[in-house]
Amino acid sequence: MSITAQPSRNGVDTATLFATLDAVKGQNDIAKFQFRASNTWVSGTHSRSTISGFYGAGQELTHVHDTVLDADHPAVLVGNDNGPTPVEFLLPALASCLTSGLANIAAARGVDLTKVTSTVEGDIDLLGIFGMSDGSVRNGYQGIRVTFHIEGDADEETLRGLVEQSRRRSAVYDALTNPTPVTVDVVVG
Amino acid sequence: MSITAQPSRNGVDTATLFATLDAVKGQNDIAKFQFRASNTWVSGTHSRSTISGFYGAGQELTHVHDTVLDADHPAVLVGNDNGPTPVEFLLPALASCLTSGLANIAAARGVDLTKVTSTVEGDIDLLGIFGMSDGSVRNGYQGIRVTFHIEGDADEETLRGLVEQSRRRSAVYDALTNPTPVTVDVVVG
Repeated sequence: MSITAQPSRNGVDTATLFATLDAVKGQNDIAKFQFRASNTWVSGTHSRSTISGFYGAGQELTHVHDTVLDADHPAVLVGNDNGPTPVEFLLPALASCLTSGLANIAAARGVDLTKVTSTVEGDIDLLGIFGMSDGSVRNGYQGIRVTFHIEGDADEETLRGLVEQSRRRSAVYDALTNPTPVTVDVVVG
Repeated sequence: MSITAQPSRNGVDTATLFATLDAVKGQNDIAKFQFRASNTWVSGTHSRSTISGFYGAGQELTHVHDTVLDADHPAVLVGNDNGPTPVEFLLPALASCLTSGLANIAAARGVDLTKVTSTVEGDIDLLGIFGMSDGSVRNGYQGIRVTFHIEGDADEETLRGLVEQSRRRSAVYDALTNPTPVTVDVVVG
């Protein structure tokens, strides 16, 4: 499981990954990022978000492709189902964050992964957002469960350790499990 | 601003909305939902999520269209930029949740909206996920700012009140600003 024997592992360019980490160690400021999205209301509960530019590594950057995300409520929630319900986007965010980290950590530890899939379930009681509880039902998910299926060239303990380390270093896991300060400003007209 | 004079306002079917809320009041269990996503690792930090089915209103349901979401890291983070960075998906989730709620609340209050746009910015210091801080830098966003631009047939105070009420009832705002229990299970092989 030599790291240097294979410059790319799991599709991760480990040489560049380590060089990037070294660069950040030498200049902490390049680790400061700002991600952004814009949203335009379409009609009813349907809106469209675009992800395009961001700031990072000391510069303004743009994704190779813009990502356009339609969100809506399903018919059962009086929407037209033009896209996922907004709160559903938290689930792929979590799964993909843990999976990206897993691939990087596996590469860094010299583990070849052969298959990684996951499912995410989030339980939510809409009495919260409907304002029909006495405050005992929250607006958001009461709980989220991620289940990974993972195969790779390492023993079970090692493979489990990759997921655990990814969880410990996951931006989305932290954003969901710990409070994030959010401000909402309004400009009228 | 009569509610009953206009069965649809802002593209919201207010009659059905109120009927749905009445139905939930009479049978709280139909407000219990479970949202789901599945994810498959592709290569490196690239993975693909699918949103399709969910449970709600006492039944298994499926969105009209599956939504496939590619996530990756950008080149500057040693990925191939096949999609947004996982943590970026939290931003459109927040904007669209607040916007859906805003349209519903405006319709319920008899306010005609003419334009709603928003931008979301999330500041994140990657020293956290790189494990290069002494624990003082978190993995997730240090803060998220949403800025709404809103126009409609009501005075400024009323329009601001719509956003405020939407924030108070937002599932995603709650999920980000308050801790959500997340479990991660692993099946090997």
